[in-house]
Amino acid sequence: MPLVRIDLAKTSTPELRKAISETVYNAMTEIANVPEHDKFQIVTLHDQDQLVYPAAGYLGVSYTPNIIFIQVTWVAGRALDTKKAFYRKIADDLHAKTGVRKEDVFIVLSDNAREDWSFGNGEMQYAPK
Amino acid sequence: MPLVRIDLAKTSTPELRKAISETVYNAMTEIANVPEHDKFQIVTLHDQDQLVYPAAGYLGVSYTPNIIFIQVTWVAGRALDTKKAFYRKIADDLHAKTGVRKEDVFIVLSDNAREDWSFGNGEMQYAPK
Amino acid sequence: MPLVRIDLAKTSTPELRKAISETVYNAMTEIANVPEHDKFQIVTLHDQDQLVYPAAGYLGVSYTPNIIFIQVTWVAGRALDTKKAFYRKIADDLHAKTGVRKEDVFIVLSDNAREDWSFGNGEMQYAPK
Repeated sequence: MPLVRIDLAKTSTPELRKAISETVYNAMTEIANVPEHDKFQIVTLHDQDQLVYPAAGYLGVSYTPNIIFIQVTWVAGRALDTKKAFYRKIADDLHAKTGVRKEDVFIVLSDNAREDWSFGNGEMQYAPK
Repeated sequence: MPLVRIDLAKTSTPELRKAISETVYNAMTEIANVPEHDKFQIVTLHDQDQLVYPAAGYLGVSYTPNIIFIQVTWVAGRALDTKKAFYRKIADDLHAKTGVRKEDVFIVLSDNAREDWSFGNGEMQYAPK
Repeated sequence: MPLVRIDLAKTSTPELRKAISETVYNAMTEIANVPEHDKFQIVTLHDQDQLVYPAAGYLGVSYTPNIIFIQVTWVAGRALDTKKAFYRKIADDLHAKTGVRKEDVFIVLSDNAREDWSFGNGEMQYAPK
């Protein structure tokens, strides 16, 4: 049920994009109680001047043109500690698998409701009984 | 007032994209109480590896590279049955008009508030009196 | 902490895109209590038929292919008057700096929570103490 938008540089490799996709999905299923096969993501590639971040950094974090924006829409209800572990796992695993700078992994979450999803077929699959 | 993001394959035809745009708008005005002419949509085209869905399907629904992601941001307040009818109409009408597989029509909704919209001119058109 | 998606025509100039980026950031820091250097934006360019607006206009506002969609995700809590001033400043400043039609500046806001942000490094920087 999460829909994930991943925005990053055109210069990224297909291997990196695949690793991001897998890492985010794994973090969801292992930590955030997302069901198996619930993997829906939209990747968009950008020229360098289309990914804007503060040159001076923010909150002690510094960024490069390899910044990766990960925007998640999912059903409300995850606990604060779950969200913390989710951020941690994505940054750590991505770094371990691909060498990506952890500072370049930017994540933002938005909540909606169970009734706000149609997984195809014109149905509201999560409708209350 | 809805803003609709439509993400689909680069290989889609302009005719299909136009049909999606019209179908979503019609479902909004006919079912979801959206005013006439309130039609704001952003279409983004993607290479095949940029639209990610589960190869094994999800909840009994199977997907193809022709998957269509429709992400709606609109003002809170639609009833559950309205949302159900909205999903149904979009999938049914799109299939009838274009032959698109209903399973490939993925829809997600996000709510905001009336004050969260400026339809141009620097104004908050939906401001409370 | 805001993440801003800016969608506009491929035919826009890099100078205009830079002006939009700066104008939105300045309006945030000057009016909406956004901290300095909190500047994260994703720009996506579109062919003309990918930016959809009502040909007849809406609520007395008319649009052209130069329409600029500005979608902001930020932490809940801004007052109604702050949002009003925010819309006003962006449209006025953009028009003054670049000649853009104010009617073509479309802005939509979405709220989330402080815990919904990781500004890199796998951390929840806004976590409660």
